[in-house]
Amino acid sequence: MRFVLACAATETAQIEGISAAGATRTLMAHTPPADAELIEYGEPTLAPVVPVSPDGCPTPAIVTRAVRECTDFPLLVVDAGLAAQTGAPTVDLGDRPGGDIRNRDPVPNAVAIYDRGVELGESLPDDHLVIGETIPGGTTTALGVLTALGEPHATSSSLPENPQSLKERVVEEGLTASNLAPGDCAEYPLEAVRQMGDPMLAAVSGIAVGALSRGARVTLAGGTQQIAAAALVRHQGIEAPLELATTSFVANDPSSDVQGAAADLGLTFTVTDPGFDDQEHVATEHYCAGVAKEGAGMGGALAVAVERDVSMAAIREQLVECYDRLVGANGA
Amino acid sequence: MRFVLACAATETAQIEGISAAGATRTLMAHTPPADAELIEYGEPTLAPVVPVSPDGCPTPAIVTRAVRECTDFPLLVVDAGLAAQTGAPTVDLGDRPGGDIRNRDPVPNAVAIYDRGVELGESLPDDHLVIGETIPGGTTTALGVLTALGEPHATSSSLPENPQSLKERVVEEGLTASNLAPGDCAEYPLEAVRQMGDPMLAAVSGIAVGALSRGARVTLAGGTQQIAAAALVRHQGIEAPLELATTSFVANDPSSDVQGAAADLGLTFTVTDPGFDDQEHVATEHYCAGVAKEGAGMGGALAVAVERDVSMAAIREQLVECYDRLVGANGA
Repeated sequence: MRFVLACAATETAQIEGISAAGATRTLMAHTPPADAELIEYGEPTLAPVVPVSPDGCPTPAIVTRAVRECTDFPLLVVDAGLAAQTGAPTVDLGDRPGGDIRNRDPVPNAVAIYDRGVELGESLPDDHLVIGETIPGGTTTALGVLTALGEPHATSSSLPENPQSLKERVVEEGLTASNLAPGDCAEYPLEAVRQMGDPMLAAVSGIAVGALSRGARVTLAGGTQQIAAAALVRHQGIEAPLELATTSFVANDPSSDVQGAAADLGLTFTVTDPGFDDQEHVATEHYCAGVAKEGAGMGGALAVAVERDVSMAAIREQLVECYDRLVGANGA
Repeated sequence: MRFVLACAATETAQIEGISAAGATRTLMAHTPPADAELIEYGEPTLAPVVPVSPDGCPTPAIVTRAVRECTDFPLLVVDAGLAAQTGAPTVDLGDRPGGDIRNRDPVPNAVAIYDRGVELGESLPDDHLVIGETIPGGTTTALGVLTALGEPHATSSSLPENPQSLKERVVEEGLTASNLAPGDCAEYPLEAVRQMGDPMLAAVSGIAVGALSRGARVTLAGGTQQIAAAALVRHQGIEAPLELATTSFVANDPSSDVQGAAADLGLTFTVTDPGFDDQEHVATEHYCAGVAKEGAGMGGALAVAVERDVSMAAIREQLVECYDRLVGANGA
């Protein structure tokens, strides 16, 4: 098994009220690079921040790192189009962040990213890839892609109150700017990414298609953004078995139906509950309050822990250790 | 401990008779990318070759990989200026291969690479870095840098017959083209790299200086190319303890005196003999005949194995397994 983290940025995240991943424009640009460093090294190296949401919720990358410290899985970070440098080693599939989907052609290099992703997925020696993502604003671009594909699935949010109507307005504006109606891209999945998506979706769907083509097992690690990636794979005409692994926080989100969407797309669906209820710590209590929910492959990493018989209690213990090391004991 | 592999290319390698790392121009461009993939994944992924010298000697990266399979050390691949893509994840410090040192200004971005290397070395969380390199033609550029610095050390070669007089002619031409006399760059180490070196030397000396500045232990893994990197560190005025770990094949090379050079530069010197004499296999017999000798951090990796109490017999066994997996049993 190899854990792949696809990192990117989209200017769509800059729209007021869209994302919990970083309070400011600067923090937003540095969140994916910092997530990658955190999972690679256990701490940010070149990124100037530990990503923490406005109300103090630590990035789900800390959970993924805690699982890595317990299971020692190999990591491959993919740069699909970051907005700031990362000190983590990356395979680069794209060379720029995605634009705001309210404008035309926000991901002009979608086909190139996808093609390189396919080549990468084909080339890796691993019989199992778990593919996570980190891109602030990504649930909105996921909604854009699902709408363009004609897939009627709502997306979840990193905010406790899902700004659903704002996201729908943004998608509507985007469709108008791109001269598209819902479902127009059903047979042109890469056009859906190019006009309504983000670089991460091009990369993840490409890597998945490449790995599936050589018979590898593929687990998409995440929530409704990975539903969009899975839909892109299905709209490429790929019927191979495909898995989605997410957290209980996404699965229990009443504003979206990730389980129903997974069933519609023929995905094997795994939900892992890290048991944060049992713990009183700032690293976990925000998740119980519905913040963040998922991201940086958290759900897939937890599923890996379960497959390897590492208990959730051990993961929680390691998570607190990671958090205290990074943010200071008691969540300074 | 983290193992850093600095990869780059120099057009100097294209000079007929200079390098054993690849029989053809194409093979030469793909050797560092393939070395990186080999150590990262255990096999080439996007690189179209398993690097093997004209007479069938496998790349020393296989030895480094064998040690990694026995000790599971973390790997960081640095792209200082490759001539072909690699499927290994990299931190990119440079954006182009070095030019032929017989021309002016072969490494115009030497300062930028060095500065990014310092930043990277400072930023990594590890208390010990073992830094290896892979760059065909690198012993000639190392001789160029040592000459420009006024360090009177001959360099070794990946060829059994060291083409010393050819290398000296190339360096002489380079000095003339750059309007330099031997020793002119003693106080300007980055000028030595820029006019007479290669991108790897800028990267390795930078990473070493960055790591030393925060008190980390640094082991330069390799032969006379790492002597050049160490000389660059010393000519920056850095007196901190610094280690060089190489193979017995370099240490026993009568055409150079790596031990004497290490002593002159105040380096802690470690030689590891992998005991290839005891083995009859195509993967090892070339080394006993003086081919390749070192590279891709082989000597440093062997030293790591010794520090971790992994026997050379275990490394040799793993090496044969790696080789047979890659090239086919009995060296097809």
